[in-house]
Amino acid sequence: MGRTSAAASSGGAGSVYIIGAGPGDPELITVKALRLLGEADVVLYDRLVPRELLGSVKPNARLIYVGKEPGRAAMSQEEINRVLVEEAKRGMVVARLHGGDPFVFGRGFEECSYVVSHGIKCEVVPGVTSAIAAPEKYMIPPVLRGVASSFAVITGKEDPNKGRRFVDPGKVASAVDTLIVLMGAGTIGDVARNIMGAGVRPDTPVAVIINAYRPGEEFRVYTLSTVPERVDNPAVIVIGEVVKKALALLGHDTAR
Amino acid sequence: MGRTSAAASSGGAGSVYIIGAGPGDPELITVKALRLLGEADVVLYDRLVPRELLGSVKPNARLIYVGKEPGRAAMSQEEINRVLVEEAKRGMVVARLHGGDPFVFGRGFEECSYVVSHGIKCEVVPGVTSAIAAPEKYMIPPVLRGVASSFAVITGKEDPNKGRRFVDPGKVASAVDTLIVLMGAGTIGDVARNIMGAGVRPDTPVAVIINAYRPGEEFRVYTLSTVPERVDNPAVIVIGEVVKKALALLGHDTAR
Repeated sequence: MGRTSAAASSGGAGSVYIIGAGPGDPELITVKALRLLGEADVVLYDRLVPRELLGSVKPNARLIYVGKEPGRAAMSQEEINRVLVEEAKRGMVVARLHGGDPFVFGRGFEECSYVVSHGIKCEVVPGVTSAIAAPEKYMIPPVLRGVASSFAVITGKEDPNKGRRFVDPGKVASAVDTLIVLMGAGTIGDVARNIMGAGVRPDTPVAVIINAYRPGEEFRVYTLSTVPERVDNPAVIVIGEVVKKALALLGHDTAR
Repeated sequence: MGRTSAAASSGGAGSVYIIGAGPGDPELITVKALRLLGEADVVLYDRLVPRELLGSVKPNARLIYVGKEPGRAAMSQEEINRVLVEEAKRGMVVARLHGGDPFVFGRGFEECSYVVSHGIKCEVVPGVTSAIAAPEKYMIPPVLRGVASSFAVITGKEDPNKGRRFVDPGKVASAVDTLIVLMGAGTIGDVARNIMGAGVRPDTPVAVIINAYRPGEEFRVYTLSTVPERVDNPAVIVIGEVVKKALALLGHDTAR
């Protein structure tokens, strides 16, 4: 077992960096990610990567949009994997930019696996995840002394292959103090009913942050029993008593 | 309800930034956090803040170490809160640097609450949390298609005031696919027994990352039934099948 991160040597080939771009504010990328972006010969980027960051690439860098809109992708995952390996084999430094963190419901692990299986060096550069940063912008802590000592993160998306959920939101919500749902914009009504069905109080507060750190940002507060069927995408959903604490703080604040 | 983050106006007073410094590598701070660090008149920093970052402050900035070693603090939380407010009231720009993210088992929320309650402007700047970034360095994803679709983060620390745990690790581990334990270096044996007692298989893999992104970094792999009573601090502990997937990738890699 290596004591440093995975980094296969690969002769004269290039390398691949799987990079988190952060939650949307271009200043919330890490210093390392920004440096690597400026060194890359080829940059593949997602729908949720802040476009301002593309101004930091080298003048002759090749920019490839890989999409990932809900329901369709500009480029299939297989194609993305293939480009990562092909460009690295040509000796290029390849940066694959993910919105948020590449391992939090991104396909960063699969990409790194594919790249390493082809003998190419791959490094993961973590990013600030919107799961934590979006609530934080509205002063919602995932944990808080005396209020919440555990939090879970799940996807709200149903598994299109299985015709059923990946995950049981009610079961998870019953076991932790704070539940954060990513990719749940289209299923928030279902998710809330599932959680209430598991015995969680209908008046449990729910915060929804739409377009966090982006144009069109919105902050909305509901309870499990008042959430709508769906909200705009992308949304980060936070369920738990910590939401009330944040409202008290924001209320104090905005009352000034 | 305001649509932007909490920012109380406060006449001629300064302001307080509650900032995440990231998981330990000084390059894993955000661009925004580094900028604010360079603008601050007063900087309060934790034990887990990379010291290299202190080289980025203004020449005349006041640096205050606030400690937070396990079991004792260089400065009490009350004292930290008081300094934040006093310095801001003197018109200073105050940066309070937390290791990781300030809202993930930090006291960032309490600090912001206190500051805002004194009429001072407070902004939270998220950081890369070691809960995700430490496993990620060893290619461990918290979620992975077909393997894990939910993860939870808990503290392994017992509540010193209550004489019991904040959280039931076994209950949480039974409800999610991946469990990440922070501040569990001293209690890892207890936590593992608690989880096995809840019915989780004793051969479930456990990865421990000690001193992630710092000198003395170590990566160790156990199962629930083979973890030691305690490990060195600070440690990030990951429990779940995703650990096996990472080992396969790292093995492939280090076999080259």
